[in-house]
Amino acid sequence: MSVAAEVFVHPLALCESGAVGAGTRIWAFAHVMAGAVVGRDCMIGGHAFLEAGSRIGDRVTIKNQVMVWDGVEIGDEVFVGPGVCFTNDRVPRSRRTRLPAIARRYREPEGWLATTRVEQGASLGARSVILAGVTIGAYAMVAAGAVVTGNVPAHALVRGVPAKQRGWVCRCGARLSATQFRPWCCRQCGETFDDEAIGGCTSRAPSC
Amino acid sequence: MSVAAEVFVHPLALCESGAVGAGTRIWAFAHVMAGAVVGRDCMIGGHAFLEAGSRIGDRVTIKNQVMVWDGVEIGDEVFVGPGVCFTNDRVPRSRRTRLPAIARRYREPEGWLATTRVEQGASLGARSVILAGVTIGAYAMVAAGAVVTGNVPAHALVRGVPAKQRGWVCRCGARLSATQFRPWCCRQCGETFDDEAIGGCTSRAPSC
Amino acid sequence: MSVAAEVFVHPLALCESGAVGAGTRIWAFAHVMAGAVVGRDCMIGGHAFLEAGSRIGDRVTIKNQVMVWDGVEIGDEVFVGPGVCFTNDRVPRSRRTRLPAIARRYREPEGWLATTRVEQGASLGARSVILAGVTIGAYAMVAAGAVVTGNVPAHALVRGVPAKQRGWVCRCGARLSATQFRPWCCRQCGETFDDEAIGGCTSRAPSC
Repeated sequence: MSVAAEVFVHPLALCESGAVGAGTRIWAFAHVMAGAVVGRDCMIGGHAFLEAGSRIGDRVTIKNQVMVWDGVEIGDEVFVGPGVCFTNDRVPRSRRTRLPAIARRYREPEGWLATTRVEQGASLGARSVILAGVTIGAYAMVAAGAVVTGNVPAHALVRGVPAKQRGWVCRCGARLSATQFRPWCCRQCGETFDDEAIGGCTSRAPSC
Repeated sequence: MSVAAEVFVHPLALCESGAVGAGTRIWAFAHVMAGAVVGRDCMIGGHAFLEAGSRIGDRVTIKNQVMVWDGVEIGDEVFVGPGVCFTNDRVPRSRRTRLPAIARRYREPEGWLATTRVEQGASLGARSVILAGVTIGAYAMVAAGAVVTGNVPAHALVRGVPAKQRGWVCRCGARLSATQFRPWCCRQCGETFDDEAIGGCTSRAPSC
Repeated sequence: MSVAAEVFVHPLALCESGAVGAGTRIWAFAHVMAGAVVGRDCMIGGHAFLEAGSRIGDRVTIKNQVMVWDGVEIGDEVFVGPGVCFTNDRVPRSRRTRLPAIARRYREPEGWLATTRVEQGASLGARSVILAGVTIGAYAMVAAGAVVTGNVPAHALVRGVPAKQRGWVCRCGARLSATQFRPWCCRQCGETFDDEAIGGCTSRAPSC
């Protein structure tokens, strides 16, 4: 497929996908493979890599050097910070091996491919690493350098290696205080939430 | 602006800045944007990215895949290890959003841009992540893989996620012993320091 | 040297080495320097960088954005995950400095270069950082985001910052149970091991 006219592809980028939405810009040395699906009005930063099978929503910011693989789905308005690395294999080995036990595992995607999902409006901090198979809830915020090894509830703030929940954030990004009266009210933008909106609220860690 | 004749730009690099000092070399697949300022006799490694608004001193080593953003200032003779990632926004969200509370924040730099400074001779280890708004003191050493979330005193050694101070280092890089008599004396190169030279000495953590 | 005909080099990659084995594929924006040695049937992912002096075995998978430096040797059938970063200097400073104590150290490789070795079939997880001078044993598994600061025994599973041993894995990648009767037997693929095969067994941490 050819790239749509309304897509900006930097002369030094490589865009092989015809499934890139209008208004999206792809910067120098980025590589979007055929089979990657990208929505409208996104920014794909320099040196980023979108593999065949990755799916990106609308108005997403993909900063420089991000790597998105087959099996990763990113919702609308997500922020993927510089150098964020997804994964899609929980127990990787070189599939070029002569060992039959390994070669067998890579014969079909079912043998190794784990899917990952980032929901609307979430932010993944710089150089965070997202392990294969997790779901990151809407408007969650992953701190820079975190290694996410499990699911992250909507609106949760997580950080560290492995990433642990340290609080809640508003859609605007500001911290929500756990001690305030319900409904939650953001002191920055004034938005209010009930417990249901900030996902996983009933199962939140005692530290929050 | 055109690139000065005394600057080496690899044929596969992209240098759009005219403010690069003589003797600086820029390697394959690196991208130096217009508006980035780079001093003399620097090395800009392959796949590195210097954004408009970043400022680099003289005789700096920027290894491969380093990302330096608007608002980051790097002093003379700093070592920025491979894959080091700066940041310039403490609470990032996709600015392509339709949410007014977020869009408003990104209207002016004052709403989101935090500046970062690395002082003369400091070293940032491989793949370390530097959070927006910190200052890293002269000749400090940040260990590989560290996530720097606060200021680092001059000559401090920090490591971990988040980075914590674990000692002091000489200008040459060798460890200084906290138990030795003052003035501090480097066993490797013989240089001596008074407490004032190794910054933040009076406020150093008990572990040092 | 020219690149052998049986090597696939993507039109947007830069391969300057004539020492790349047949069947190896090098993807877009990757850079293999002259003096890098790569075996047969390897995959060198996009934006990867292999420096002069690096040595890669046969059937190795080098994922995107991996950086391999002079002094690093990688055995056959190793998996090097996306964004893995090696290092070769324990105390890096900018060698462009005017400080004699630092300039002296960089005059000869003996002054600063530490060598690193990854043995057959090991896996290095996404964005892990390998400190200079370590050896990673055969079929070891380094978790995503780990920072490896010491030697890793054969078949060991390590994770965290700094990386600590958390178990043992089979050649196929599956966990081995420390409570089972010897010889060790993989529940996934049925392979059996004696204590000698899984290296460092006698010195393993109590947590394993």
